[in-house]
Amino acid sequence: MMTQELIDLLEGGNLDALQSFISQYQPYDLADMFNQLDKQNQLRLISSLPTTLGAEVLEYVEPDLQYRILGQLEKEKTALLLNEMSSDMVADLLLALHPHQAERLMTYLSTDYQEKISNLMNFPPDSAGSLVTIDYISARSSWTVDQTLQHIRKVGHDAEIVSYIYVVDPRGKLSGIISLKEAILANPSARIEDIMRADIISVPAQMDQQEVASLLSKYDLIAIPVVTLDNRIIGIITVDDLIDVIHEEATEDFQKLGGSQPLVEPYFKNSVWSVFRKRIGWLLILFVAEAYTGNVLRHYEATLSEVIALAFFIPLLLGTGGNSGTQTVTTLVRAMALGEVKFKDIFKVMRKEVTTGLLLGVSMGIVALIRAEFLGVGIAIGSVVAISALIVVIWASIVAAVLPLILHKLKVDPAVVSGPFISTMVDGTGLIIYFTMAKIMLNL
Amino acid sequence: MMTQELIDLLEGGNLDALQSFISQYQPYDLADMFNQLDKQNQLRLISSLPTTLGAEVLEYVEPDLQYRILGQLEKEKTALLLNEMSSDMVADLLLALHPHQAERLMTYLSTDYQEKISNLMNFPPDSAGSLVTIDYISARSSWTVDQTLQHIRKVGHDAEIVSYIYVVDPRGKLSGIISLKEAILANPSARIEDIMRADIISVPAQMDQQEVASLLSKYDLIAIPVVTLDNRIIGIITVDDLIDVIHEEATEDFQKLGGSQPLVEPYFKNSVWSVFRKRIGWLLILFVAEAYTGNVLRHYEATLSEVIALAFFIPLLLGTGGNSGTQTVTTLVRAMALGEVKFKDIFKVMRKEVTTGLLLGVSMGIVALIRAEFLGVGIAIGSVVAISALIVVIWASIVAAVLPLILHKLKVDPAVVSGPFISTMVDGTGLIIYFTMAKIMLNL
Repeated sequence: MMTQELIDLLEGGNLDALQSFISQYQPYDLADMFNQLDKQNQLRLISSLPTTLGAEVLEYVEPDLQYRILGQLEKEKTALLLNEMSSDMVADLLLALHPHQAERLMTYLSTDYQEKISNLMNFPPDSAGSLVTIDYISARSSWTVDQTLQHIRKVGHDAEIVSYIYVVDPRGKLSGIISLKEAILANPSARIEDIMRADIISVPAQMDQQEVASLLSKYDLIAIPVVTLDNRIIGIITVDDLIDVIHEEATEDFQKLGGSQPLVEPYFKNSVWSVFRKRIGWLLILFVAEAYTGNVLRHYEATLSEVIALAFFIPLLLGTGGNSGTQTVTTLVRAMALGEVKFKDIFKVMRKEVTTGLLLGVSMGIVALIRAEFLGVGIAIGSVVAISALIVVIWASIVAAVLPLILHKLKVDPAVVSGPFISTMVDGTGLIIYFTMAKIMLNL
Repeated sequence: MMTQELIDLLEGGNLDALQSFISQYQPYDLADMFNQLDKQNQLRLISSLPTTLGAEVLEYVEPDLQYRILGQLEKEKTALLLNEMSSDMVADLLLALHPHQAERLMTYLSTDYQEKISNLMNFPPDSAGSLVTIDYISARSSWTVDQTLQHIRKVGHDAEIVSYIYVVDPRGKLSGIISLKEAILANPSARIEDIMRADIISVPAQMDQQEVASLLSKYDLIAIPVVTLDNRIIGIITVDDLIDVIHEEATEDFQKLGGSQPLVEPYFKNSVWSVFRKRIGWLLILFVAEAYTGNVLRHYEATLSEVIALAFFIPLLLGTGGNSGTQTVTTLVRAMALGEVKFKDIFKVMRKEVTTGLLLGVSMGIVALIRAEFLGVGIAIGSVVAISALIVVIWASIVAAVLPLILHKLKVDPAVVSGPFISTMVDGTGLIIYFTMAKIMLNL
């Protein structure tokens, strides 16, 4: 509805009404409407926005659309918008384009800026470097507070976050940090190096983004400087970009725990074919691992023919084992992702999970006995089912507690121990437990 | 090791050496060491820290320890620390204590501050209001920029984040926002109401924290104002507190998807008993739901006795169905949590999942045929297994695609459709599919 109003305004040509409509919305909302417009109206909207707002709106739009719009605008407007967009977004845009297209857009940037952007584009996609924006404020350690504030008044318009000022020494190395608040509260004639904090948290450009995200969340920062190996500042990473990393990381772990390779794109962006490829691998591996349940059952064929009622409880027993294993593994893998549990805790974890498993096993054993009674298979088979349920639940807890920790130790992402993986592990071993119990307790 | 160094310094009494040691670390790291000290040294450390730093360190410490320390310090120091801590942390501390203890601590606060803190303590735990800090900066819309900056110099020391200044009109209602950067860049004699942004994003105190978190991440904000129903500002929520909410939300969804009720505390903080209680409920529900597989199998007892080889493939077929259902459900529930998929997309989702399920089903049918061949059960039973695998995989995809969307529509959290839940649903229906196919194809 509001999009329709915008369309009417764009096509109506009443600029005042258009401006007053626009002023009611945030850049994100305008981008949302922008995405629903046809090409002509998209161009009209971007042209009618002030450059800063136009750049902000474009930042929320997909790279291919960014490129189409920038290519159709007047050259001057394109140059203004590109130079106004934050540097990490420009680098992302250029990386998403065909090299020829990227080269064309590059010509709109100043030589100086071109070089900086090229540097940003060289960092691997998962590294801190690839999230960097160079639109930060720096000050010399020898400046006074007043000089620094004047400097900010001069260059601050382009900066993305001005909550912190990064202090560099005469050799260009990052030597401290001062918040804008501290600068304002300080005596204007004080020297920056006397009031800055020197115990600064910075990260190397090579660091994994997920590590940066946990540092930032640990120390409650809203931006973190990224430095070269010799401590020169490359730029900063702001908290809003890291929130996206936190979301992506959790999404990947979800999909791994669901027994699928992670999908990189949002749900509807993935083609059926790419979803198929992400899923079929694990399905096949699990199928092969599960296949030996067939051999186990064939091995016990005689027992099974003799007491066919044993078959009635196979899905129930295996299901219960798989369920309790899945409960343990999801809790544990998440706790490991958050750094709450480490390999050195393996015995603590085992003690906890085995004790819990014992309580759960006893409970499930009792209900299994009741269930067998209701199915009318007799107390002997009922006891076999109950004891098996007890052992299978404890066994599932042990496997689910130990495997993720060992994998983590072996530098394999523990999230590959998915619910389906644990269920599969428990299915085969659970059958062996069940039939062994049956042979012993029923004298078969 | 660094903790040992700190202990030596605390017990040695060389204050200069202690100060220079302390100056190397961040509040978070000092809190980490603090937690490992004995009581005497904890008191020594807090007493020797400057008040601001001491308060920051305490903020990272658990409420019961905060209280023990505050109770043992000199009254004057306690008052200083309490007044320096951010108001949301003080409210959390007071809420965690016994009312008598809270009352005792309250006496250290000014009457004015006492009242504000009491207000904060009245908000429900999951609401925006309970995350609010009142340590923000506000300005009157009629002030000039210069007046505002002077005001910040006067009151800014206590403010938690001074990146934004919140503008209130003469009636005390939130009317706009201006960033500190904008204030510094503006003409000192400009009036705030002329340069502020009036299109401000604020949230009511009653809003759910998770909703606030997604607003903040959508609009890339670092703080968001919280208002009463008549638009008076109560305080602000800062991004660092919301990152914790984002983490907690993902953790809850993980545990639900693993078929367990969410644990509120970090892994090791939960007693075996509380973990047991969170898990047993779903285990029992799933057990009951799974139990009818026993009836299905008893119903087909004659068929099963006649062709005992059919039993060999039960765990394999049900496992494969459960696995592919789990893959779908984890992907989908996560996409719904991130707002990528909504109920209106139900047919799009079904088309996508059924097509993917068809591809997966055909693949799994083929490997099932190969597996049956290797187990030497003959082509007839092999065909039954293959066709059943195909149908079961497609069926699991449909169930896993539709159920979470319907639950969401019914206002039930879709994360209750866990992997174990889907596996259980598929187990019973999968058996019916399998035996129906067997009866038809083998003429039983």
